[in-house]
Amino acid sequence: MNNTDTICAIATAQGGAIGVIRVSGPEAILITSSIFTPINGQSLDGRKPYTLTFGKILSSEGEIIDEVLVSVFRAPHSYTGEDSTEISCHGSSYILQQVMRRLIECGCRLAEPGEYTQRAFLNGKMDLSQAEAVADVIASSSAATHRLAMNQMRGGFSQELSALRDKLLHLTSLMELELDFSDHEELEFADRSELSQIANEIEQVIRRLAQSFSVGNAIKNGVPVAIIGETNAGKSTLLNALLNEEKAIVSDIHGTTRDVIEDTINLRGITFRFIDTAGIRQTTDVVESIGIERTFQKMSQADIVLWMIDSDSEVDMEGLKDEILPHCEDKNLIILFNKSDKVSTERCDTLRQVFAEVDAPKLFLSAKQRQGMEELEALLVETAALPEISQNDVIVTNIRHYEALVRALESIHRVQDGLLMNLSGDFVSQDLRECLSHLAEIVGGAFDVEDVLGNIFRHFCIGK
Amino acid sequence: MNNTDTICAIATAQGGAIGVIRVSGPEAILITSSIFTPINGQSLDGRKPYTLTFGKILSSEGEIIDEVLVSVFRAPHSYTGEDSTEISCHGSSYILQQVMRRLIECGCRLAEPGEYTQRAFLNGKMDLSQAEAVADVIASSSAATHRLAMNQMRGGFSQELSALRDKLLHLTSLMELELDFSDHEELEFADRSELSQIANEIEQVIRRLAQSFSVGNAIKNGVPVAIIGETNAGKSTLLNALLNEEKAIVSDIHGTTRDVIEDTINLRGITFRFIDTAGIRQTTDVVESIGIERTFQKMSQADIVLWMIDSDSEVDMEGLKDEILPHCEDKNLIILFNKSDKVSTERCDTLRQVFAEVDAPKLFLSAKQRQGMEELEALLVETAALPEISQNDVIVTNIRHYEALVRALESIHRVQDGLLMNLSGDFVSQDLRECLSHLAEIVGGAFDVEDVLGNIFRHFCIGK
Repeated sequence: MNNTDTICAIATAQGGAIGVIRVSGPEAILITSSIFTPINGQSLDGRKPYTLTFGKILSSEGEIIDEVLVSVFRAPHSYTGEDSTEISCHGSSYILQQVMRRLIECGCRLAEPGEYTQRAFLNGKMDLSQAEAVADVIASSSAATHRLAMNQMRGGFSQELSALRDKLLHLTSLMELELDFSDHEELEFADRSELSQIANEIEQVIRRLAQSFSVGNAIKNGVPVAIIGETNAGKSTLLNALLNEEKAIVSDIHGTTRDVIEDTINLRGITFRFIDTAGIRQTTDVVESIGIERTFQKMSQADIVLWMIDSDSEVDMEGLKDEILPHCEDKNLIILFNKSDKVSTERCDTLRQVFAEVDAPKLFLSAKQRQGMEELEALLVETAALPEISQNDVIVTNIRHYEALVRALESIHRVQDGLLMNLSGDFVSQDLRECLSHLAEIVGGAFDVEDVLGNIFRHFCIGK
Repeated sequence: MNNTDTICAIATAQGGAIGVIRVSGPEAILITSSIFTPINGQSLDGRKPYTLTFGKILSSEGEIIDEVLVSVFRAPHSYTGEDSTEISCHGSSYILQQVMRRLIECGCRLAEPGEYTQRAFLNGKMDLSQAEAVADVIASSSAATHRLAMNQMRGGFSQELSALRDKLLHLTSLMELELDFSDHEELEFADRSELSQIANEIEQVIRRLAQSFSVGNAIKNGVPVAIIGETNAGKSTLLNALLNEEKAIVSDIHGTTRDVIEDTINLRGITFRFIDTAGIRQTTDVVESIGIERTFQKMSQADIVLWMIDSDSEVDMEGLKDEILPHCEDKNLIILFNKSDKVSTERCDTLRQVFAEVDAPKLFLSAKQRQGMEELEALLVETAALPEISQNDVIVTNIRHYEALVRALESIHRVQDGLLMNLSGDFVSQDLRECLSHLAEIVGGAFDVEDVLGNIFRHFCIGK
């Protein structure tokens, strides 16, 4: 990472009326200046930051490439924290390429993907979790994903982590103090129950953050829903019925998140991600058993399980119940009696009786006739039970952050155990430092334990 | 056209790091201000023109939609000539849509396509030919198309037309003067030969401009090339061989100019547009005759005709010559002996003799083996004979302009004839006015004959 060179990149997508090129680095203004001739104005060099200058970009042969507006920013008051310019051209890819070529001829380097934000991070304009949120903000396609990303980008999560760090440092310093002066019996230390109390508070915050990931992930990637049932129960008909109702929104989402391979449907503002499964039926066939095992594995990723039953089927319902229900214990199960338009009221009553003792919402519908779809939608939205998120809620949406939080949680659990078991301060301190370092991963800097401890230590060590 | 409302539009394509929204109209700054909260800065209202302000756009519920940079421009020093702002957001389509919604809630109207440039035209920031060139600049995909569009946008064509207008007005005033004072025998007027001289000069300029369209059109849309020949002569193999050599460039061009249905190939900086034709063979079949007639019709659009001959074919060459050559008289004909790798030297000599009296470059090649392709490329480029264009050359590329020039040319021809035939000044004046009005169509304003004449007239009419 060479941070002393000047980079340039086209910052807009191809095809608009306007195209913007960003230049950042110590020579940004100098290089932009060298290819730019102001029209009725000052040269760029003399312009104040946060001003625009109208002028021409010339080719090396002196031909006009374009008439442009150039914005000037000076370090540290820019996105990257460096001197930078933005060149607003006509949105022709030919023009943009020619301007880029001129910039590179005059000493710029083509920026790597994400390098602007990387520089902003390295220059302390944002921490790593904020930098990651920039990409989420740009990718956000709904009010909820936008809200979460915007809060994170603006430092909501960073503040929460910073408060956690202070608490952890406080606890660490108390532990180290105990350690260093344990042979001075005349000094009084915080007792272990007091330390436990602080550790418990820390654990609560980390746990809450880690747990928020299931909501955050559901908002960002969709609530995972598995549709299971016999091969002929009408799973794909149901999926199509749901998809058709919201076709426009679905294709929108597909267009923006290219890596989605599962069907994603937005129902009443909540995104559902449907997990494909093979049909389930009782079998002694080994190959089929493997397929069914795989279905149960996929089910384990789901929050909601839609069990589709062919109302008109002669299948052994008790057998199916024995097979399926054990896999649904920690899931939100919804039982759908499909093809209900084809059966008698008596048959419906029978089905109700068979499933009477299963504690799950049940719905009679016909996916093919689109009967009961609205009720199903309402039921899905109700079952997803996503909380109303405000822009001030800190919700973890990034799996990297979640994993770091899980490791931090393990560390703080060891701290709690160590304190309860009255382990030596050495061990407990070690776990505290690990907890700190896991949290530090999230924001991408070292939480500088030694320095801060130094300060606290001086503060504690009265007259010693 | 209501020019007193304030319009807004997303000016960048979907999918970049940055998205820009433009707002223009009397309330542009006021409306932008009302949804914008500056961060560490002044309110927009107080900002000088050509400055940038960093701040937040808030939703009507007070949530942050985005952190943005806003540029402020004040009438008449803006693109449209009106007060305007540009809001530079993160490139999320969700964010851009939300900001647009806020602007519209606060009194903006969604801009029509091209309305910004239309306003610039209506406010006298550019004439119609310049406004049209803006779209060409944005669509330009090669050095040559860019050069032509840029010159036109910057008013090169407008200046040429303005000089023409002055000459025409001068001639008109001389004619009207003659008319008004023809009964005052004591006054001396310019004699008819002098007037003819001026008319001839005007005719030359208009003719040169009209003729430049064939070059301009070839640069903008490609030099039209028809590949003709027997069904089995290897036309599509040739096209594929040419296409493959320049595949990347071809797909680029296809991506930018969506309405191209013919194959367009860029060879050494020149764009060729290949016109599809059906195979030609001598036939008495009525249906086939119609197909061949259609081929000849399409050939008539071509500047260059590639006649592909299967060197190995037993076909009656004299018959083909009789059929094809009459259609090639005003074309640049190139004869290609294809599959030359499959025939003997003797056969080649025979073919040379058969076509000896046909005045056209001839080339032996094998499209399948890619033999002779480079020679063909060189020959095509040489035959296209497009002149080197500099950024100062005025070349007409727009068919609307060309058609207006052709009509202007007809009018000035009538003027010339009228002067030669000593027709009454009434008639000649009428044609002059028509000529002026055809040229005025191009720039989209009336060349205000009466006013200018009034001035000139006062100037002429000494002491009367």
